[in-house]
Amino acid sequence: MVCPVKRLAILGSTGSVGRQTLDIVRTFPDRFGVLALAAGDNLELLSQQVEEFKPAIVYHHREGRIHADEGREGLTLEEIARLPEADIVVIALSGDAGLSPTLAAANAGKRIALANKESLVAAGEIITGEAERRGARIMPVDSEHSAIWQCLAGEECEPERLILTASGGPFRHVPAAELARVTPEQALKHPSWRMGRKVTIDSATLMNKGLEVIEAHWLFGMPIDRISVIVHPESIIHSMVEFADGAVKAQLGYPDMRLPIQYALTYPERLVNPGLPKLDFRTVTRLTFEEADPEAFPCLRLAVQAGKSGGTYPAVLSAADEMAVALFLGGRVGFGDISQLVERALAEHRPVMRPSLDEILAAAEFGRQRVKHAASGDGP
Amino acid sequence: MVCPVKRLAILGSTGSVGRQTLDIVRTFPDRFGVLALAAGDNLELLSQQVEEFKPAIVYHHREGRIHADEGREGLTLEEIARLPEADIVVIALSGDAGLSPTLAAANAGKRIALANKESLVAAGEIITGEAERRGARIMPVDSEHSAIWQCLAGEECEPERLILTASGGPFRHVPAAELARVTPEQALKHPSWRMGRKVTIDSATLMNKGLEVIEAHWLFGMPIDRISVIVHPESIIHSMVEFADGAVKAQLGYPDMRLPIQYALTYPERLVNPGLPKLDFRTVTRLTFEEADPEAFPCLRLAVQAGKSGGTYPAVLSAADEMAVALFLGGRVGFGDISQLVERALAEHRPVMRPSLDEILAAAEFGRQRVKHAASGDGP
Repeated sequence: MVCPVKRLAILGSTGSVGRQTLDIVRTFPDRFGVLALAAGDNLELLSQQVEEFKPAIVYHHREGRIHADEGREGLTLEEIARLPEADIVVIALSGDAGLSPTLAAANAGKRIALANKESLVAAGEIITGEAERRGARIMPVDSEHSAIWQCLAGEECEPERLILTASGGPFRHVPAAELARVTPEQALKHPSWRMGRKVTIDSATLMNKGLEVIEAHWLFGMPIDRISVIVHPESIIHSMVEFADGAVKAQLGYPDMRLPIQYALTYPERLVNPGLPKLDFRTVTRLTFEEADPEAFPCLRLAVQAGKSGGTYPAVLSAADEMAVALFLGGRVGFGDISQLVERALAEHRPVMRPSLDEILAAAEFGRQRVKHAASGDGP
Repeated sequence: MVCPVKRLAILGSTGSVGRQTLDIVRTFPDRFGVLALAAGDNLELLSQQVEEFKPAIVYHHREGRIHADEGREGLTLEEIARLPEADIVVIALSGDAGLSPTLAAANAGKRIALANKESLVAAGEIITGEAERRGARIMPVDSEHSAIWQCLAGEECEPERLILTASGGPFRHVPAAELARVTPEQALKHPSWRMGRKVTIDSATLMNKGLEVIEAHWLFGMPIDRISVIVHPESIIHSMVEFADGAVKAQLGYPDMRLPIQYALTYPERLVNPGLPKLDFRTVTRLTFEEADPEAFPCLRLAVQAGKSGGTYPAVLSAADEMAVALFLGGRVGFGDISQLVERALAEHRPVMRPSLDEILAAAEFGRQRVKHAASGDGP
């Protein structure tokens, strides 16, 4: 069987997921081609990527455009997300910047490999609704949701419960009193995954897992109270699904983002990739589980609450956290302040139910500003 | 949606799997009805079952027949396995007695819930070939193969490797020298599963896992050298599948045969059964894995060899083991003799490749007799 080459539009090509996506393209040159690359700041890396993959369309946030086919210059991220020639749109942008392109890709009925958490957290209802109406397919690109997606394959009945695993981060046994003194350097040392700085801090607070609960809610249409989180420090079981009869299915592997990225690109196929490590039970001799204590992880509690409350709350949560983490990384607030700043922003927010995209973006801006003001001491 | 009642023919209704199958029928009276019951010796229990489930057809090995609709008396097991009104034929017979009825059900194009290991071990090529030609579907009823079957659901590509988990039995850390002194009482104390006596001893020697490797080979068309065994003492992960991209899927649950039985009966559906326990990660805090050392478990090594050699070797293996275990349970030979007796029978066997059913049954008889003679000291 000869498979046609799938043309990818990769939004956020210089970040961690973007680079690993290109690594998959490099491994399977007969399967994938790069139609478009878009990046925010790392112009040097983007130039190298353009040199290697020769996309027809390039977008750079600062330069506007640095190379493009004739007549295809100056496209916006949204226009790139809707390109008729794109077979798969990879959304590897970080933060709120992902919302509008994801919605554009959904509106264009695309296959979307989605690595941007904020899109579904803040605008899950709009994006999944649009995807359904337009026949778009959202394929999750992170290890937890990919695991759940894989476990749901071939199952005809609605699952009973989704079980997200969390590494628990580096501080899961650190007493609350000591957390106040945690430095950014300590928090950036993740025990099992190598990721970007923001998501690594979110892993330490378990906010990352809280955002994933909301994401799972939208991706799989599962009520929040049927999504559990358990701490699994070895990060080998990437997540699980419990079915009506009590059977639980899990997907396992070493922590390596290339597997879920590749699966999203090749689904429903699976391709042999010699670069991906095979699980070896001579080295994996023990898997452990602990309860995720909501007292020890207030960010997880806040996220679950925001997810249940719905409306614009998750947008505030996500944006407030983004700002609080930036302030922590900049040495402006302590580790323990992150959850408190987010909690305060949520408490001060007047929610809009069934919000428009503009209302969501406004709520996110509110969250960011409240955290900024509260941290600088000039809150209301 | 109203589902028509599925009519079951249960062969081996008084054994462990037969009784648990009737437990599922009892739980879902709107889904399942009992068309036929067949049992080998426990007449008292069979009579109770007939009283409760009112099957049209009953078979008892000793009595010939004890109750049947007019004109449907005196049917053989093979005739029951082919009954046109049977929607699912449950083969819960033990030992070689399962071969011929399983083949009959395959020939009749039935959905077969297969709990009889010996059928596929001894006659896998004939039975799976017949099932394919006649459109029969074999649905495995044991926790390991059910787990693999569940993990394969929805996967379009051939798996890379099957990973069978083994509890390792009660003696996995007992030095070889001490195994000679193991009593039947000690060997019958299985750490995680409650099963019949023969399969419990086979679990302690890991012969059971070796037979399952051969079974998996036929059920899933997987070469023996791509089927691994790992010791997993907690018996929570029931087995796993590794795919081309390195992803591993596992099925988890407490050790309870009712889950794989129910899944085989309801597939592709899954039904809520309040009687089935839900996995609780507050109690399941640790899963461990050890290599299955072929020196420590010679029966596993013999079974894998027999599976690779093919022909009539697996039939000899299985029947020789059956006899050796019976002699051990009767106090006639020691625990360590089981593997030696089986090994000797295999060494003395002159195999037939692509055997007929008669040749398979003859090989099994050879295996039994060699063990019997060797144990009584009047070998050749």
